[in-house]
Amino acid sequence: MSLFVQKFGGTSVASIERIENVARRIIKTKNEGHDVVVVVSAMGHETDRLVDLAEEVNYQGLDARREMDVLLSTGEQVTISLLAMMLMKHGFNAESVLGRQANILTDKEHTRARILDIDAAFLQSRIKDGVIPVVAGFQGTDDSGNITTLGRGGSDTTAVALAAVLEADECQIYTDVEGVFTTDPRVVEGARCLKKITFEEMLELASQGSRVLHTRAVEFASKYQVPLRVLSSFNEDSPGTLITREDDAMEQPIISGIAFTRDEAKLTILGVKDVPGVASAILGPVSEANIEVDMIVQNVAADMSTDFTFTVRREDYDQAMEILQNIAKSIDAREVSGDNKIAKLSLVGVGMRSHAGVASRMFEVLAKESINIQMISTSEIKISVVIAEKYLELAARALHSAFDLSEEAG
Amino acid sequence: MSLFVQKFGGTSVASIERIENVARRIIKTKNEGHDVVVVVSAMGHETDRLVDLAEEVNYQGLDARREMDVLLSTGEQVTISLLAMMLMKHGFNAESVLGRQANILTDKEHTRARILDIDAAFLQSRIKDGVIPVVAGFQGTDDSGNITTLGRGGSDTTAVALAAVLEADECQIYTDVEGVFTTDPRVVEGARCLKKITFEEMLELASQGSRVLHTRAVEFASKYQVPLRVLSSFNEDSPGTLITREDDAMEQPIISGIAFTRDEAKLTILGVKDVPGVASAILGPVSEANIEVDMIVQNVAADMSTDFTFTVRREDYDQAMEILQNIAKSIDAREVSGDNKIAKLSLVGVGMRSHAGVASRMFEVLAKESINIQMISTSEIKISVVIAEKYLELAARALHSAFDLSEEAG
Repeated sequence: MSLFVQKFGGTSVASIERIENVARRIIKTKNEGHDVVVVVSAMGHETDRLVDLAEEVNYQGLDARREMDVLLSTGEQVTISLLAMMLMKHGFNAESVLGRQANILTDKEHTRARILDIDAAFLQSRIKDGVIPVVAGFQGTDDSGNITTLGRGGSDTTAVALAAVLEADECQIYTDVEGVFTTDPRVVEGARCLKKITFEEMLELASQGSRVLHTRAVEFASKYQVPLRVLSSFNEDSPGTLITREDDAMEQPIISGIAFTRDEAKLTILGVKDVPGVASAILGPVSEANIEVDMIVQNVAADMSTDFTFTVRREDYDQAMEILQNIAKSIDAREVSGDNKIAKLSLVGVGMRSHAGVASRMFEVLAKESINIQMISTSEIKISVVIAEKYLELAARALHSAFDLSEEAG
Repeated sequence: MSLFVQKFGGTSVASIERIENVARRIIKTKNEGHDVVVVVSAMGHETDRLVDLAEEVNYQGLDARREMDVLLSTGEQVTISLLAMMLMKHGFNAESVLGRQANILTDKEHTRARILDIDAAFLQSRIKDGVIPVVAGFQGTDDSGNITTLGRGGSDTTAVALAAVLEADECQIYTDVEGVFTTDPRVVEGARCLKKITFEEMLELASQGSRVLHTRAVEFASKYQVPLRVLSSFNEDSPGTLITREDDAMEQPIISGIAFTRDEAKLTILGVKDVPGVASAILGPVSEANIEVDMIVQNVAADMSTDFTFTVRREDYDQAMEILQNIAKSIDAREVSGDNKIAKLSLVGVGMRSHAGVASRMFEVLAKESINIQMISTSEIKISVVIAEKYLELAARALHSAFDLSEEAG
């Protein structure tokens, strides 16, 4: 007998009919002899409806975050009661459990609280009594009893945190996709659902645009070594993708997947005097304007001046360009240029650590397709390149095929 | 400086615009130098929406009352957060307070819980800090931390209970009517909003169809001697009706109001042997069928047989008649008859206690209008008669005028 934490997102519980499907998945696991703790999000568009009400109040400029948490946490509260009823209707002993009742203690940072501690005793006793606890995701309580919420991806975090303290055998995140793919199946026909992937690879893939699981939940799972499985609410036959720690006994494939993001833009400031503090002089004003900078590349030229390039989201391009032009004047740079028709593509795989030559093989594949590489950035398990957006699909397909990602691994 | 508990019902908070009106009422009281504790219901049709969701689960036959409480209590939770935000937007220090946070401890009778205890310390400290606490009505918590709800009229009960433990100067119930009227203004043109009425009179009027305040809240207010004021959310100029204990120093008007209910039906079983146990033999099966019996009249005839008449809601008439016909056979009664076109009309007033002749004056007025009285029932502060429904308006107007109810009292 195993213990599973099963988490179902907003799409999976968007209607009573879907809640009944979710109940069937849970019951199937129970009937196989396992214990289940369920975590759910708010129904479909419920959170949007609540946010709209708050916006109608028009509280701009107010710090109403405590009240937002009281408001938004009702969404999950509705789902847990309905799902518990549904499980009861099917003859199972189920009970809704609020974040507070599950003893999910957080700090006081409303709308983006962090979990400080979970006392597992209550849930353990309910499981022992044969109850299926249906826990409200996304919410907790501070030490004064105020409702807090965990911010984006909060329900995933709740599920992983509960799996950690309950020492569950697996934390299963049900979504509307089948699992984690080698790359976007809408772009590359041969894209394949991965059976297994490491936490690190998942983090690189997730932050690079394969938005299946929230980064924070993966980090949490990695930290507490909780085996995490992503699988489909709608396709019962797919085993999904198991995200787990690196397994020494197993031969790792060199590359696990290809992640990419469109909607990128790059900005370059040319002929900057290469003196200490120049990078922060350039990036400081950009980040002050709340523009997120992704890749940063700096080259030193022969004349002791430097070219400095970074990427931002395309929607921030115009604003970033304006800021950069002002900076260029103040630091006496030669020129500012930019391109908002670029894309970023990354190869991700823990196997890279022990295999030399992945980067050169990648560049060779791109060269063969006459795709010019504009920027390169590497980490231990990832190689990212910036290319013209129009070549993105071509590059993804060529690399997917060159690294044999369509074939079933090991 | 006084302390007021102000309660706003579902109609008063049905939209963000109305929530802003409510905020203005509260602010007006604050600006007059008083402290306010606010109690609110769920927004307009929110409770219906939630009940519909639960019904879609189709949990008939299940005891899902614990989950219903988790579900329904979200309604008030939404309102308190929005109203707190609205008050903050207008520059006031407000905070939402859940039933649990207000320390409203109830028994475990989900969907109809009773308040066992309230620890006022938390609210008192918030008031002391200059905060306007916005408390969720209708909800509490049992001693295991489960959410409970107080059943119909629960938010009124919350308001009165808080006013009692906080020793508030007044518990103000804002509704969509101006106050308590001498009778239904839609029926009698001269109907007048009462300035003052006793708890007992209010109880008789409320249970007789002047459905302004829930009986339970009035009983609670009476028990703890909480001055209760009913007033309009929509009309700022009206002072409403103060419901309070009987004031010896004040001359009581003989009659405070006239209550009536249509939709009544009466059933008579004739020629019943007058032996002990006959009343329960007749009424037992009726109440077992969950039919509420209102007035009961029994007369003994000369031949030692008795006629037994009682009234039920009109919608229960057919079922009650069927039951009664079976009973008639089993107890060998002569005959069963009935009438489902009747109405009940009651004169209510504490002044009756010290004034003889109210009943005969009432019967005289009805006789003058040629209205036949079919049943009579009296209590210390009430005289009720059953008449043909078609005479109801005529009777109400004649009595309203005969007892000088249109005139401003004292």
